[in-house]
Amino acid sequence: MLLTRHPANPIMLPIPASDWETYNTFNPAVIYHNGLFHMLYRAQGLDWVSRIGYAVSKDGVNWNRMRRPVLEPQDSSDSRGLEDPRVTEIDGIFYMTYTAYGSEYTGKGKPTHNGAGVLPMIVQSRNLLDWERVGPLVRGEDNKDHVLFPRRIRGKYVALHRRPPQVWLAESEDLVHWPEASMRPVFGPREDNGWDSLRVGGGGVPIETPDGWLIIYHAYDLDHTYRLSACLLDLEDPAVVIRRPRSFILEPRELWELRGDVPNVVFSCANPVVNDRVYVFYGGADHVIGLATATLPEMLNFVLYE
Amino acid sequence: MLLTRHPANPIMLPIPASDWETYNTFNPAVIYHNGLFHMLYRAQGLDWVSRIGYAVSKDGVNWNRMRRPVLEPQDSSDSRGLEDPRVTEIDGIFYMTYTAYGSEYTGKGKPTHNGAGVLPMIVQSRNLLDWERVGPLVRGEDNKDHVLFPRRIRGKYVALHRRPPQVWLAESEDLVHWPEASMRPVFGPREDNGWDSLRVGGGGVPIETPDGWLIIYHAYDLDHTYRLSACLLDLEDPAVVIRRPRSFILEPRELWELRGDVPNVVFSCANPVVNDRVYVFYGGADHVIGLATATLPEMLNFVLYE
Repeated sequence: MLLTRHPANPIMLPIPASDWETYNTFNPAVIYHNGLFHMLYRAQGLDWVSRIGYAVSKDGVNWNRMRRPVLEPQDSSDSRGLEDPRVTEIDGIFYMTYTAYGSEYTGKGKPTHNGAGVLPMIVQSRNLLDWERVGPLVRGEDNKDHVLFPRRIRGKYVALHRRPPQVWLAESEDLVHWPEASMRPVFGPREDNGWDSLRVGGGGVPIETPDGWLIIYHAYDLDHTYRLSACLLDLEDPAVVIRRPRSFILEPRELWELRGDVPNVVFSCANPVVNDRVYVFYGGADHVIGLATATLPEMLNFVLYE
Repeated sequence: MLLTRHPANPIMLPIPASDWETYNTFNPAVIYHNGLFHMLYRAQGLDWVSRIGYAVSKDGVNWNRMRRPVLEPQDSSDSRGLEDPRVTEIDGIFYMTYTAYGSEYTGKGKPTHNGAGVLPMIVQSRNLLDWERVGPLVRGEDNKDHVLFPRRIRGKYVALHRRPPQVWLAESEDLVHWPEASMRPVFGPREDNGWDSLRVGGGGVPIETPDGWLIIYHAYDLDHTYRLSACLLDLEDPAVVIRRPRSFILEPRELWELRGDVPNVVFSCANPVVNDRVYVFYGGADHVIGLATATLPEMLNFVLYE
């Protein structure tokens, strides 16, 4: 496996005595900004609702958390929780994408999740702490794992999103309207390849390199084991896959990846690059947070030649 | 009294179950930046050492705190604690001034505090969380209550500081060297005036107004009751007092100002101005944090005409 786990793992645990992060802290967004790692993480407390907490770190390993969440449910569209955040900086504004899980379902299709629905939401902030809604990427379908590219491409905002079982692309002039005509599938599961045979979804913010957009993604198989891998998308048309190795870069092996709230899961929403090193932050078994890294040249070597 | 207490007071309390902020949280620095109030507050835990904690707020009343301190003792110069921070932004850099209370005394004069010494320290940060030392304003004397003006004046950095029993001015080319020749007394206690008869010291960051620098300061009398008042200094030469009313703007009256770790104290290190309102954050009895406000026109009316 390409990624090396940090010896201090897991780097973040739930806090039993905290009402809102009692049970699980996992699947964080992490952005490196102004000399610090900033984490926005999913937490589940006594009511099992997912809220977004904030933590800050100099090294990505030792974190100082805020006592209260920074983003919580506001209405029936997200009353069951805010899940799996990704944070992208575009032109000095921070955008968070997360899955809003609502008790009511207002879409045009069938309810997606046990009679309720999900919305792939986008919110924005100037300071990473105070967030306001921009809107959902789409409505009325089972769509999540959406993440914004860190710059406009050919003049448009671009996002990866997930229409099961594939990763899709979407484009927008304003981050509010995402025309159906702009949506195209990018890559999907590989039935003959074992670990990614059933479903795939995007990870953290796409990494711009001279060779293309480096994408870290998750996939699972018939056993529902979640693994991570990487691929390379075209710089000017990210719907085009340049290369996608057949192997993975991380799979559940540690006890805290094998056992937790959902067993056998490594799931990443964050891969910031600091000093040419890719920091892959990931949820272990939907319960704790781990860190595994590789250098950017190692990652590029993997996607280009593995 | 000019200042109006917020009905939610005290707005911050110690946390009994936290090792480092068990007993007292008080005398905070507060700066309004990028749409949020940022607080750096003094806290004393089980070892009675003062550390600096961080909290953030949208309204100045409801605060979200970090679980661990952001600045702690590093060596014998501050091993007994970091006290009474003030934070000033100059040209996009944040500077914190605080009293370093050390177990060893290395100055040239007599030890100032029970065989140990204090240093009026300056540290800097780009992000309000990660701080590095600039240096002390002076060495070898009992000097504290130092605070930087928010811009250079006649090309030089300027600070208020306190040589007992008076408030002094100091100037510097680089924030590191503060020549003795630049130091001048600004104002002192008034023996015939009761509440400020024994000692005075500066408060938060000086507020620039068309009429002069608005200064909030503390003073005490023979009873050791700490009160707050305000005065006006000349814009181009802040060693010149334009006007100093004889009355005070806040005195201890609430139970949590009268009783605490040190009784009968209101002591302020922060007076940010937001939407033309002066937010005076202050320690109550060296134990909790209170908020009292006045509009900027009310404050100016006081210093000009009271």
